[in-house]
Amino acid sequence: MRDFLPSDVRKREYVIGIIKEVYESYGFEPLETPAVENLETLTGKYGEEGNQLIYKILKRGEKLEQSRSEKELSDLALRYDLTVPLARVVANHKNDLPKFFKRYQIQPVWRADRPARGRYREFYQCDVDAIGSSSMIVEAELCAAVSEILTRLGFKDFVIRINHRMFLEKLLSHLEIPVEKQIDALVAIDKLDKIGIDGVSEELKKREISTKSITDLIGIFKFMLGLLTPINLIEMVDPSSIGEINQGFNKEFLSQMSGEFQTDSFLIPGLADLRQILELANFLGCFSRIRIDPTLVRGLSYYTGAIFEINVPDLAGSLGGGGRYDGLIGMFGKEQIPACGFSLGLERILVVMEERGMFPKELETNSADVLITIWNEESIGESLKLAGELRQQGLRVLVYPEADKLGKQFKYASIINVPFVCVLGETELAENKVTLKNMQTGEQETVLRGDIVSKLKGLPL
Amino acid sequence: MRDFLPSDVRKREYVIGIIKEVYESYGFEPLETPAVENLETLTGKYGEEGNQLIYKILKRGEKLEQSRSEKELSDLALRYDLTVPLARVVANHKNDLPKFFKRYQIQPVWRADRPARGRYREFYQCDVDAIGSSSMIVEAELCAAVSEILTRLGFKDFVIRINHRMFLEKLLSHLEIPVEKQIDALVAIDKLDKIGIDGVSEELKKREISTKSITDLIGIFKFMLGLLTPINLIEMVDPSSIGEINQGFNKEFLSQMSGEFQTDSFLIPGLADLRQILELANFLGCFSRIRIDPTLVRGLSYYTGAIFEINVPDLAGSLGGGGRYDGLIGMFGKEQIPACGFSLGLERILVVMEERGMFPKELETNSADVLITIWNEESIGESLKLAGELRQQGLRVLVYPEADKLGKQFKYASIINVPFVCVLGETELAENKVTLKNMQTGEQETVLRGDIVSKLKGLPL
Repeated sequence: MRDFLPSDVRKREYVIGIIKEVYESYGFEPLETPAVENLETLTGKYGEEGNQLIYKILKRGEKLEQSRSEKELSDLALRYDLTVPLARVVANHKNDLPKFFKRYQIQPVWRADRPARGRYREFYQCDVDAIGSSSMIVEAELCAAVSEILTRLGFKDFVIRINHRMFLEKLLSHLEIPVEKQIDALVAIDKLDKIGIDGVSEELKKREISTKSITDLIGIFKFMLGLLTPINLIEMVDPSSIGEINQGFNKEFLSQMSGEFQTDSFLIPGLADLRQILELANFLGCFSRIRIDPTLVRGLSYYTGAIFEINVPDLAGSLGGGGRYDGLIGMFGKEQIPACGFSLGLERILVVMEERGMFPKELETNSADVLITIWNEESIGESLKLAGELRQQGLRVLVYPEADKLGKQFKYASIINVPFVCVLGETELAENKVTLKNMQTGEQETVLRGDIVSKLKGLPL
Repeated sequence: MRDFLPSDVRKREYVIGIIKEVYESYGFEPLETPAVENLETLTGKYGEEGNQLIYKILKRGEKLEQSRSEKELSDLALRYDLTVPLARVVANHKNDLPKFFKRYQIQPVWRADRPARGRYREFYQCDVDAIGSSSMIVEAELCAAVSEILTRLGFKDFVIRINHRMFLEKLLSHLEIPVEKQIDALVAIDKLDKIGIDGVSEELKKREISTKSITDLIGIFKFMLGLLTPINLIEMVDPSSIGEINQGFNKEFLSQMSGEFQTDSFLIPGLADLRQILELANFLGCFSRIRIDPTLVRGLSYYTGAIFEINVPDLAGSLGGGGRYDGLIGMFGKEQIPACGFSLGLERILVVMEERGMFPKELETNSADVLITIWNEESIGESLKLAGELRQQGLRVLVYPEADKLGKQFKYASIINVPFVCVLGETELAENKVTLKNMQTGEQETVLRGDIVSKLKGLPL
């Protein structure tokens, strides 16, 4: 977990600002939930591995004294993601929310994980979810929104990989992998980017899946991998050709599946949805960003339909991901309510933007537009008064906090990179004037006190 | 701890926006620290009572198994305030920060306290601190900044009460309360607004403070209370006369102390600072807001100089408070660095604003500027395309997510309070037109597809 100094915060706020603006333009509304949830709300939602990464809070006072076993020590936990809290909110506040609820939520989550590049124990998720509809319009709009965000941030080379949980199940059944071994198989496939195709094959063998099934499955993946190498690490290609590559790939894949299942791909469970998402995405301008990837699994156990992940070539993990989870809200309330969402990882986006130098120069700005010096103890009041006048005009004004040597005050102004310094010395005060120094050019001029605002505002601050 | 639905979040963001803007105009820069701190960073900083309100995080995995006693169960804790993390940051990042570091920080903190009106277990503090200077310019600017924030939010009746830890010590010694009993005495005085003057007198007796000392102390407070009743609950008076009352009070109090100590109040420890703060505040326009209150103690043990608290008549607690803490940073580093800060309680401000109806009407706005209906499965693409065009123009656009009966779609638009609905039906599509309905007036007109943006933008959205 890290501290964010002012220049870090400004970069984070720049990215969050664009994310909010785009989400709002799609009609998503802000939601916030507490950092601390009841432990039982979280347990069992993130799979076995996830469970172990939850930060648990120690009971307090008497409650703690009465706890005997290790399991009883905790009743609260830190938020692990923003999806489970959303599901709880939708179930709890059903009557206060519209039938279709589109919300975004940008808050930190905590995982007791091993830190890595762009991965921290405290990190921000930027989630966007649409609740209440099973229509593929939802999936298409989500892809369009995240695509617009990344484009506005300056990303040219990202790909949204999509797959479908129902198609994965159908495919595994078709390859005669028994239902009870399918989750094991998915866990193995999920590791493809880490352990490669031979590693996956090994894992499947270990889980006692038949050699024929493995050969067939790997055959399909090999076909895919043959089309584009490597498939999970989005290849370094000319960004302008990504759209063409994706489209060719989607077409080839759907046609191969038609052959494999001997039917139109619109009749294969899951693939029908994926085809419709692609068609609708075409009208939203993000079509060329999307690539079907049959090896995409997504670890979380609550997904039920389409799943997504966004990749760029220079980051091993993803910039974000999501999917449809029509069963989760029902776990907190009486009613099953369909839902689908996308989550962007703020830190991942920031780490790539930093390395690529994608931040606009304006973000390197100073703490203030102008610094006002203090001449001596007696003139402090006049300096404060001038500061108030300039602030009234919308300027960010620092007052040097002590009556110190003028040289020291200029040195400080130069260290903190303030563009202008106002000197209110004895002469200036007597003549009702202010000396203004441009710290970039070194130029210095004395202007009437009444003219200083327009002078400062007229200059390129 | 609570969930914040969209209308709550918008109100919170409105207040935070003004706070940030004012802090930035004073040259404060944003800082963020992690929610989780090492437990040892927090212990011993907030007094005995504070210690017990810290949320502790359970150790994980092997570390937990190796823990034998209750004390060993936890190594991390949730942030309890923003001042201690700041002190840690200043000590840790000394070389990355300027000599004078002015920062603001708006983040949640957690306390395992009993909830009350405007008091929650998770709440936001809006802190502003100036590090590195002992000058009273700092105190005066802090009072001016928070005063400007409250004024811009629409508060007319707040008072900034100030006192000084050194003056309190001097006063207690002067009244012959021995040094070792002074902390007890302060704890008792701190309860004045809860238990009244007789209660305080009782408490002091219990702590074996001499009757003469108690009589003298109560005498001074009674004099103050006689000037204005009750002193701790800022009285309901015509807001425009608050300034006059404060000034009269400050003058009277300083003159009384001159008599009591038989010297000029500028020579009494602590009072010299308070007088200077008042003088400088005069140049910053917040002079009339400040009232010296000798009964103000502030619980936290780290204060060393001036202390502040802001009150309004209709809230028992304070809207914010702060003070100088010149010894805290030295607890984390080798160097003693002077510091002074102010903290505003977001939830307190919100609860009063809500009860008084102080939020601007624009905050009641809808989730979107316009809703686009879906005519049938075949026309989804055209509706999405129109949505994209309108979003390009900066509008917030909702697409109804399903091809449903038009009546249902209008009903939904009316429930979520969207001002305009676009219908793209068969006729409209054939003629390249859009039907636009004003949901407020019920008026409906059919316009050319190419004119819809200017039509929507020209109308008062």
